[in-house]
Amino acid sequence: MSYRNRTIPELVERAIDGDNRAVGRLLTIVERGGVQSEEVAALTHPQRGRAHVVGITGAPGAGKSTLVGRLLAEYCRRGHRPAVLAIDPSSPISGGAILGDRIRMDDVVPEGTFVRSMATRGHQGGLALAVPGAVRVLDVAGFSPVVIETVGVGQVEVDVVAAADTAVVVATPGMGDAVQANKAGLLEVADVFVVNKADRPGATDVRRDLELMLDLAHVTGADTDASGAVFRPEIIMATATSGEGTVAVVDAIVDHFEHLHISDRLERRRAGRVRAEIRSRAEQELLDRLATMLHTGELDDIIRDSVASHRSPVQAAAEIVGRLTGNH
Amino acid sequence: MSYRNRTIPELVERAIDGDNRAVGRLLTIVERGGVQSEEVAALTHPQRGRAHVVGITGAPGAGKSTLVGRLLAEYCRRGHRPAVLAIDPSSPISGGAILGDRIRMDDVVPEGTFVRSMATRGHQGGLALAVPGAVRVLDVAGFSPVVIETVGVGQVEVDVVAAADTAVVVATPGMGDAVQANKAGLLEVADVFVVNKADRPGATDVRRDLELMLDLAHVTGADTDASGAVFRPEIIMATATSGEGTVAVVDAIVDHFEHLHISDRLERRRAGRVRAEIRSRAEQELLDRLATMLHTGELDDIIRDSVASHRSPVQAAAEIVGRLTGNH
Repeated sequence: MSYRNRTIPELVERAIDGDNRAVGRLLTIVERGGVQSEEVAALTHPQRGRAHVVGITGAPGAGKSTLVGRLLAEYCRRGHRPAVLAIDPSSPISGGAILGDRIRMDDVVPEGTFVRSMATRGHQGGLALAVPGAVRVLDVAGFSPVVIETVGVGQVEVDVVAAADTAVVVATPGMGDAVQANKAGLLEVADVFVVNKADRPGATDVRRDLELMLDLAHVTGADTDASGAVFRPEIIMATATSGEGTVAVVDAIVDHFEHLHISDRLERRRAGRVRAEIRSRAEQELLDRLATMLHTGELDDIIRDSVASHRSPVQAAAEIVGRLTGNH
Repeated sequence: MSYRNRTIPELVERAIDGDNRAVGRLLTIVERGGVQSEEVAALTHPQRGRAHVVGITGAPGAGKSTLVGRLLAEYCRRGHRPAVLAIDPSSPISGGAILGDRIRMDDVVPEGTFVRSMATRGHQGGLALAVPGAVRVLDVAGFSPVVIETVGVGQVEVDVVAAADTAVVVATPGMGDAVQANKAGLLEVADVFVVNKADRPGATDVRRDLELMLDLAHVTGADTDASGAVFRPEIIMATATSGEGTVAVVDAIVDHFEHLHISDRLERRRAGRVRAEIRSRAEQELLDRLATMLHTGELDDIIRDSVASHRSPVQAAAEIVGRLTGNH
């Protein structure tokens, strides 16, 4: 029987039983969105929570994909069953290899690892909606860690990584990476820093810059959470091309997860993740409703009035929101 | 009397009379948003429409600011009174000069030109809301052209340029700029292409790439508008540092504006601009209302239920949208 014709409860059941084809099919449904993806969410949401969700980000060219390949191999060696969700358009994992002279996927991903790339194309909300759903599918299917690889450039990408249990930020020498990371808001979300290409000149400078910024965060209290607990991210030096530092990076990621378990921070972080997903979905639904109203032409009278200068765009927008929310 | 204490109708009247301090004050109000900016919109919207609005974009380092400086000087020479709205964070006009070894603002902007930089910081909707309001103020104050300078990277920036009467896209040799412009969706919105740094090797290659892409657009009919009219953007070679090509660029921009005037395309383009502004404002208002509901805690019960797995984030979001739109 074709996987295309199976019901969603069947697919979820098979995914839980370790059937990777069913997992792939569910991820396609989640990525596509719509009613079917909502059914997947309803079925997988209550069963979520076993996977360690690890977000990895950094500027393009930081060597994230090679590093992820090393981490996956180390996790496999330790008996884990990792999965990767690659939403980095420059990653060989997500197919970005076509564009450049990058290493091939086979060179990066160890056998037995589940790898899925997600397109960041299409409307902006797409990513914020699809990623939580995809993580849930991989979680329920028994993968752990579930690694989300992204490029820390846009706010959506930073949010995706920040919503992980453990956020890993990859910096490299000679790019002013520490400063860039600070600007992009990555410093605040990082739980583990990796200084990759540590064999290059300037690697210790990056480390010193990061230490300095963490010191400053400590002075201002930016590193304390609601309970007053302080967590200082570890900074690990690594050279992904040679494998140097891989074990230390995995240790730091695992240590952070244990630290979350001891406090109530894991629970709070995951509650925050649910809240963020609900918000993204509600936002998208509101924008979709507005788009539908615009599309059907039922707002054309208001817009025409504004084009003809009878009311300002501000007044026109207020009128439209009034119609949509029933306050008119 | 301080400009800070003047009423908004007073400020608008003074701006119309050519008082640049009043213009500056109004732009500050527009940038800040809120009720006062809405009053500015209500007063200026009916009086808009005299200025030629020109959007200029291109990758960072394409030499946009130097080119804009040249264009301004040429417009001044022709007896125009131009204004610039710089929302390019790498532009010396918008203050980006601090970050690099760029030319100083005085070297770029001719005397008598009104220059204003706008911060792109803050929430994403900010730019889409502030730019139309600022253009309206400059338009009503009698400036023309009103040049919007931005970096063609994000969708918001592309939209801003696409909403101008005339969209100018700046490419340079050796950066695969034509391909990049195509990817960013700039090819579709460009009315005039400038190949800057035309004295460098590869400039003719960029021109050829652009010609080829325009040919392809012609084959697919992507360059025809609703009335079936075809407009093929001009490609101008220029070297902004020496001033070579400046006259030809201004000629091409002016030609495009005349082309818009002959058909009904100017009217339709400007109606589209009003529509886009209304949409942006309505979207922002909806998101603001949702944010307020989240902030007050009135949605905490729904979110708690979802964290506790009693309903999926999809169901929780639907419930929230129902509350907001009164359909529950």
